[in-house]
Amino acid sequence: MTNKNHLSEAFKQTKHQIVGHGRRDIQTLKEALKDIDGQQESDMYGTGKIIDDFQTKMARFLGKEAAVFFPSGTMAQQIALRIWCDRKGLKKVAYHPLCHLEIHEEDGLKELHHIEPILLADKNRVIQLEDVVGMKEEVSCLLLELPQREIGGQLPDYKTLVSISTYCREKGIKLHLDGARLFEVLPYYQKTAAEICELFDSVYVSFYKGIGGLAGAILAGDESFTNESKVWKRRHGGDLISLYPYIISADYYFEQRLHKMNQYYQESIELASLFNQCHSVSTIPSEPVSNMFHVHFDGSKEKVEAILIDIYQKTGIGLTGNLREVNKKESYYEVSIGDRYADVPKEELKKVFDVLDKSMRAIS
Amino acid sequence: MTNKNHLSEAFKQTKHQIVGHGRRDIQTLKEALKDIDGQQESDMYGTGKIIDDFQTKMARFLGKEAAVFFPSGTMAQQIALRIWCDRKGLKKVAYHPLCHLEIHEEDGLKELHHIEPILLADKNRVIQLEDVVGMKEEVSCLLLELPQREIGGQLPDYKTLVSISTYCREKGIKLHLDGARLFEVLPYYQKTAAEICELFDSVYVSFYKGIGGLAGAILAGDESFTNESKVWKRRHGGDLISLYPYIISADYYFEQRLHKMNQYYQESIELASLFNQCHSVSTIPSEPVSNMFHVHFDGSKEKVEAILIDIYQKTGIGLTGNLREVNKKESYYEVSIGDRYADVPKEELKKVFDVLDKSMRAIS
Repeated sequence: MTNKNHLSEAFKQTKHQIVGHGRRDIQTLKEALKDIDGQQESDMYGTGKIIDDFQTKMARFLGKEAAVFFPSGTMAQQIALRIWCDRKGLKKVAYHPLCHLEIHEEDGLKELHHIEPILLADKNRVIQLEDVVGMKEEVSCLLLELPQREIGGQLPDYKTLVSISTYCREKGIKLHLDGARLFEVLPYYQKTAAEICELFDSVYVSFYKGIGGLAGAILAGDESFTNESKVWKRRHGGDLISLYPYIISADYYFEQRLHKMNQYYQESIELASLFNQCHSVSTIPSEPVSNMFHVHFDGSKEKVEAILIDIYQKTGIGLTGNLREVNKKESYYEVSIGDRYADVPKEELKKVFDVLDKSMRAIS
Repeated sequence: MTNKNHLSEAFKQTKHQIVGHGRRDIQTLKEALKDIDGQQESDMYGTGKIIDDFQTKMARFLGKEAAVFFPSGTMAQQIALRIWCDRKGLKKVAYHPLCHLEIHEEDGLKELHHIEPILLADKNRVIQLEDVVGMKEEVSCLLLELPQREIGGQLPDYKTLVSISTYCREKGIKLHLDGARLFEVLPYYQKTAAEICELFDSVYVSFYKGIGGLAGAILAGDESFTNESKVWKRRHGGDLISLYPYIISADYYFEQRLHKMNQYYQESIELASLFNQCHSVSTIPSEPVSNMFHVHFDGSKEKVEAILIDIYQKTGIGLTGNLREVNKKESYYEVSIGDRYADVPKEELKKVFDVLDKSMRAIS
């Protein structure tokens, strides 16, 4: 067994796990279905009450004219960018170097849509107005990801969003929001979803991050845009005869958890602060702006894994099952706060950080 | 209310409906989940026991090295053809003029993959060896759909399949099976799925036609092919974090209904014969080769709809909710036999055909 599997196994055996909502198991679906009338009709290839109602609800929530339910964000976002490129007749878009489309989608945007991305900003920081103004090439669309997941969930401030949006409108550049974790950043911005989304021409949100549903996404915009997206959805093979398992669970957990985003955010700040008090441990961002952040260790993956396993066994509290190597001397992992954090006894959590601090001192 | 809605409404209000398995409602999923342990873990982006087990089971059933679960056949088949085109370096394939990819997918094959289809055979008959031998252009892949759904579910005989397969192997043309209704034709061929599939290089099967699951498809072939298909599945946005609602229901209804395919086939022959005894009514094929066929009326859509509504009201038995116009004097609909046919009392069914015969005589 590799160290990684050791860590993952030790994590699974802890009594309390401080991240996430819980195991991704079939109970998640069973619970969402339990109060649903079995006689309710399935959606049929994108039509029917169950999908119409949810699309209407999300369009209103996001302040957009219309919304379309997609099986995945990968599909929804490629399609959004394709539509904007087709409208302008220019197959170029701009996004961050660590954009989901650039690093997690096997180059679908390039291979299926032949769209060329222009990478904006250094990979360790978010896109600023200067990056957009300084672009040397013309693009059809700029994608902003709020928060920028791969760098710990960092955010531009609201003023920057407004200035980028204003600039793009002046220049005829469409602005698309990768809002995979949009719900999670609303408490930081102190804005409604609609107030953020009005800065964007098109918006994607996900239902299996902070919301904790099964899978699925919404793509929203004006009606001509969403109608065109339905044609592409069929082309991609995403216009399933029945999407209701995802729609029902998205709606169920949206209702359960949307109002808890501020709680997760505050807990995230609290937890990051505990990490930052430990020797050779720091978080990115140093103060989180959502329910997520990265924990960086000045210690090799191997050494830190041994420390974490020891902590799990001593305290019964699990921090993560998956530590990643930065280089031979540094390692990190991603934190997403969900329902489980509130269940961890604070006194026992203190022990975790006492042991972590001592152990990190011992290896430095 | 249009006549169409009248027909659909009258159909819904009948006591017995002689086609299909029943309403597509949420109970379909609830039933499939009822004996599943809630603690069972979700699949994760194409990995995990729940998806591995089903893929292995289907690979064995189809006699192929490996199988991949897809959210839809639209996605699976475009990807299969793309892989074969890339291998040969030639973006041309051959298929029937009424192929699903040609008429139901908003040209995804062309728009996303830039593959050019060569249409083989007249649209009213299936592809024969001569059509393949007579092709004037080179292609990477030939797609055969068994049965050919849009012409009532017609089939080439087994000898023809063997001869086409042999020819394609000699000429270096990959042979792909659109087996959306493959399970349904096994009783006619008196072959196992593996015996049919060994004639093909790649195979797609669906789980929401005769099987009656929620959605989802399997693409099978050799391991290098299926591994490549997983990369394209991610590009298309089909590599969902959780596909288990479809996998569980596919497996559940596969077990429930695979062994009933011969029953559906025999019932289909019986029902077609009843139609063919009516004046101005005929079926395509005249003797079905699967659980499906088309019913053709020598009568306008409007007139036949009025007759059908009258029958539903007099007998409480519903034939179809959806009649299509061929031209001003002819109309037709598609029959798929499922679980419901067996529940229709034979005596009452006789009344349906008495009325139908008389009414069709009256309008001719």
